[in-house]
Amino acid sequence: MQGDHERYTEHLVREPAGLDDQDEYRRLSTSAAKGVAVVTAVHRGWDHAVPVTDYLSVSYDPPTMLVSLYGLSRIAEAVSESGRWALSLLASDQRRVAERLSDQGGPLDGLLRTTPHQRREEGAPAIITGALAWFELRTVATHEAATHLLFVGEVVAMGRSRELGGMPLVHYQSGYTR
Amino acid sequence: MQGDHERYTEHLVREPAGLDDQDEYRRLSTSAAKGVAVVTAVHRGWDHAVPVTDYLSVSYDPPTMLVSLYGLSRIAEAVSESGRWALSLLASDQRRVAERLSDQGGPLDGLLRTTPHQRREEGAPAIITGALAWFELRTVATHEAATHLLFVGEVVAMGRSRELGGMPLVHYQSGYTR
Repeated sequence: MQGDHERYTEHLVREPAGLDDQDEYRRLSTSAAKGVAVVTAVHRGWDHAVPVTDYLSVSYDPPTMLVSLYGLSRIAEAVSESGRWALSLLASDQRRVAERLSDQGGPLDGLLRTTPHQRREEGAPAIITGALAWFELRTVATHEAATHLLFVGEVVAMGRSRELGGMPLVHYQSGYTR
Repeated sequence: MQGDHERYTEHLVREPAGLDDQDEYRRLSTSAAKGVAVVTAVHRGWDHAVPVTDYLSVSYDPPTMLVSLYGLSRIAEAVSESGRWALSLLASDQRRVAERLSDQGGPLDGLLRTTPHQRREEGAPAIITGALAWFELRTVATHEAATHLLFVGEVVAMGRSRELGGMPLVHYQSGYTR
């Protein structure tokens, strides 16, 4: 082993995985660069909105996306119960939006009061104003995976909320960047 | 509507989705910034290796990841049949690795000949040398989603292949960046 390129480390996961395995996984998985989005849903008349990095595009045909949410979270319940949700992809100047919405235990009352948003129609999930792109989805499948729920959704509507060419907000190594 | 932040567009998807819906989805979904990884698997003695952006971390407990692969691709078959795969998260100086491996129809013979790699043991999936982090996984669930297969895997081993602090290779707007 020589050179920076060959600083190879290897950690074997015990079965069942222990706390040290989880810690090493947390450390290593922060090396993944991830675009930041906000997932929104309306449940019992309340807006839910949480920043996420664990979402992906599944398919073009039909347009299909997936988001992974902690199974016991309020947003997972809201998405699960309403079957209707939106993803707003944040731009690099929207770091504050992500920070403001990251307190997942805070009151729902007034959650989006200081975050400009719009919606397609009454009762539709909020779309964050200024997003590089937004997608409204309806859930077509839900899968359990470890502590999380995977929501697979078909796109029912989509668009932008700013001019083309903006830079995305990216999360990397436990921090935001662009 | 006024100001760059409020250039709102809206495209409704027909049911079933048509080509214009797919085109609009392609355009908008490139606004998602995504870290680039290489997924690898060994099938019938051959190394398979394909750059991917549609993967995510599902859970810490136990360490669990997901990758979405086109259902009819060779890599999906290799992952499906072997049940064992790896993700190597590429650094910003590994753009050529991603480009070299993106020809998914090319010959498997010699696929990794010019791409430095290592493996934990005989028959294990290749780990790309110089990766910011790597994860070897065993499939615990497979779900169909539109044209794709979602492979959920538990991490059996993980590590780095370079010093900490490298920058990730990021894919955005149909191009690579850092």
